[in-house]
Amino acid sequence: MNERQNHNTTQAGAVTVVGLGPMGQAMTRTLLTGGHPVTVWNRTAARADGVVADGATLAATLREAVEASDLVILSLTDYQAMYDILDSATGSLAGRTLVNLSSDTPDRSREAATWAAGHDAAFLTGGVMAPAPMVGTEAAYIYYSGPEEVMTRHLAALTPLGTPKHLGEDPGLAQMMYQAHLAVFLTTLSGLMHATAMLGKAGMKAQEALPELLALTDSIGDMLRAGEATPGAALDAGEHPGDLSTVTMMGATSDHIVETSTSLGLDLALPLAVQAHYRRAIEDGNGSDNWTRIIDGIRAPR
Amino acid sequence: MNERQNHNTTQAGAVTVVGLGPMGQAMTRTLLTGGHPVTVWNRTAARADGVVADGATLAATLREAVEASDLVILSLTDYQAMYDILDSATGSLAGRTLVNLSSDTPDRSREAATWAAGHDAAFLTGGVMAPAPMVGTEAAYIYYSGPEEVMTRHLAALTPLGTPKHLGEDPGLAQMMYQAHLAVFLTTLSGLMHATAMLGKAGMKAQEALPELLALTDSIGDMLRAGEATPGAALDAGEHPGDLSTVTMMGATSDHIVETSTSLGLDLALPLAVQAHYRRAIEDGNGSDNWTRIIDGIRAPR
Ligand SMILES: NC(=O)c1ccc[n+]([C@@H]2O[C@H](COP(=O)([O-])OP(=O)(O)OC[C@H]3O[C@@H](n4cnc5c(N)ncnc54)[C@H](OP(=O)(O)O)[C@@H]3O)[C@@H](O)[C@H]2O)c1
Ligand SMILES: NC(=O)c1ccc[n+]([C@@H]2O[C@H](COP(=O)([O-])OP(=O)(O)OC[C@H]3O[C@@H](n4cnc5c(N)ncnc54)[C@H](OP(=O)(O)O)[C@@H]3O)[C@@H](O)[C@H]2O)c1
Repeated sequence: MNERQNHNTTQAGAVTVVGLGPMGQAMTRTLLTGGHPVTVWNRTAARADGVVADGATLAATLREAVEASDLVILSLTDYQAMYDILDSATGSLAGRTLVNLSSDTPDRSREAATWAAGHDAAFLTGGVMAPAPMVGTEAAYIYYSGPEEVMTRHLAALTPLGTPKHLGEDPGLAQMMYQAHLAVFLTTLSGLMHATAMLGKAGMKAQEALPELLALTDSIGDMLRAGEATPGAALDAGEHPGDLSTVTMMGATSDHIVETSTSLGLDLALPLAVQAHYRRAIEDGNGSDNWTRIIDGIRAPR
Repeated sequence: MNERQNHNTTQAGAVTVVGLGPMGQAMTRTLLTGGHPVTVWNRTAARADGVVADGATLAATLREAVEASDLVILSLTDYQAMYDILDSATGSLAGRTLVNLSSDTPDRSREAATWAAGHDAAFLTGGVMAPAPMVGTEAAYIYYSGPEEVMTRHLAALTPLGTPKHLGEDPGLAQMMYQAHLAVFLTTLSGLMHATAMLGKAGMKAQEALPELLALTDSIGDMLRAGEATPGAALDAGEHPGDLSTVTMMGATSDHIVETSTSLGLDLALPLAVQAHYRRAIEDGNGSDNWTRIIDGIRAPR
């Protein structure tokens, strides 16, 4: 154990973190804890104060930050921020590895890989599957895409941030996976706020409502896994056996939610979007199929 | 154990179940297992074959079904179905208890309580928080509303179906809670199908995508509980401290999801509804607040 720690400490290479939002700060702290020398840079320099107090070095310029480490991690709002920042230091990129853990579309991460190659930098894209406070914990994982060999080279620095899951060479894959996950996450969060607003109009406090609603989200995975030995297998076969939760039954409930939300004066865009999924499947004559039939209308909107 | 079983068997009172969709069948089987004599009725009589083979008695008429038990459980698509069915047997309702576990709006459950009182029947409304295959398991729970005394009287028959949670006397409460839960559930399911469709267009099978996405839903509760000691407390205080996941950051991701979904040719209503929640909060000047700020626009749409 001690030997292992010493080993890690001596091996821990320098890392630069560009972007010190909640995520960049959490990653910087995790790297410092792992014994890595960390150089940081942020457009708004004052945001570095906390991590500098914890042992990070604030670079005076972006170029200095890039030149401090072979491995440069970017944690920014989007990919445009990367160009805004790095365009002044492209001459220093050759031979280094850029790991962009910012959110953007798969197409934009592919463009960025081409851009990085043009400056002789190795490039990985990643999507962090954890909120900032969970970075560096067992629960955190990160989807990566890009060259396997670059991944392997930097595994020692990247693994402590979150369990790496390498999806393949296509630089768009990590963000495709990230977007899909975030589509589920953001949709559920909007659903949670909608439901909290419903119960609020009925006089219930959020601190009573939200724990009950979160208990439901806790069980969704188990419910779907209980319904099918290999979740998704029937979908792949184009089968929607309607013996449990039919389109008609779920659609009726989506109607009730729209009605209740209307009478409470709530925003209707979200419940209407969900209702539309069921209406479409019913119009297509698939009311007695399993609710999963709604995927047809999502795949091929009219 | 044996003594307990015998005890239960002698105590188990007669129950009538009206409506034999997946849910009514699951409840009938759970009651039979508990030793209750169960009489069933369904508009389409053939649907009773399975539960009759398991020991239930099929009533020849609805009136006969109602008269067989003091406790009549209704499991139908909506409350209109209850009127369609019971209007022919209102003369037999006096002195009995109707427990309507069908989905509908809170207003319609309040109307139904008044209707039942007009026929001298006791009335409980309930919302079953479990898919049919989980009825009778530890994980199942049921929200009830209506007179506490009626609840208590029928606890022995109702408890085995799912842990009862009595919300209060107002007959609308159970469906209000049910709608709120189902708003989260249906929204998440639509999000899961959207994400599965995204990954499908990128060449990934549903049986690879769905287990990954379900792992995310498994962790949403923990993520939110990790962010706040008492989830909902800040919301109740009208506070949205924006130090972790800001409206701007989450809104940018919602933009990326809309863009990615557009380029994949997917249905956009759901991602647009989510994006609108963030856009509204940004328009209101609250971009640097915590993402929970989106509740303002849900509560008071423009
Ligand atoms: N926070 C989370 O829990 C979480 C979870 C998973 C993934 N992510 C992803 O991680 C990334 C970072 O998220 P975050 O929450 O840390 O914060 P964020 O608020 O999205 O990112 C802020 C960072 O980006 C910089 N920035 C934005 N536009 C810029 C520009 N045009 N030029 C220079 N710098 C610019 C900001 O600089 P200033 O300080 O100067 O404004 C700041 O350092 C995002 O892509 C997000 O989707 C976040
Ligand atoms: N299934 C679940 O996992 C689940 C989970 C939680 C809550 N629930 C709720 O439980 C209730 C029952 O759900 P379910 O899935 O069993 O099936 P369902 O398909 O919603 O309900 C079917 C039952 O309602 C009857 N019915 C509908 N309209 C009727 C009418 N106008 N007249 C007479 N009978 C009528 C059907 O009779 P026929 O057989 O003759 O068509 C059948 O017995 C719903 O309110 C649902 O929201 C279900």
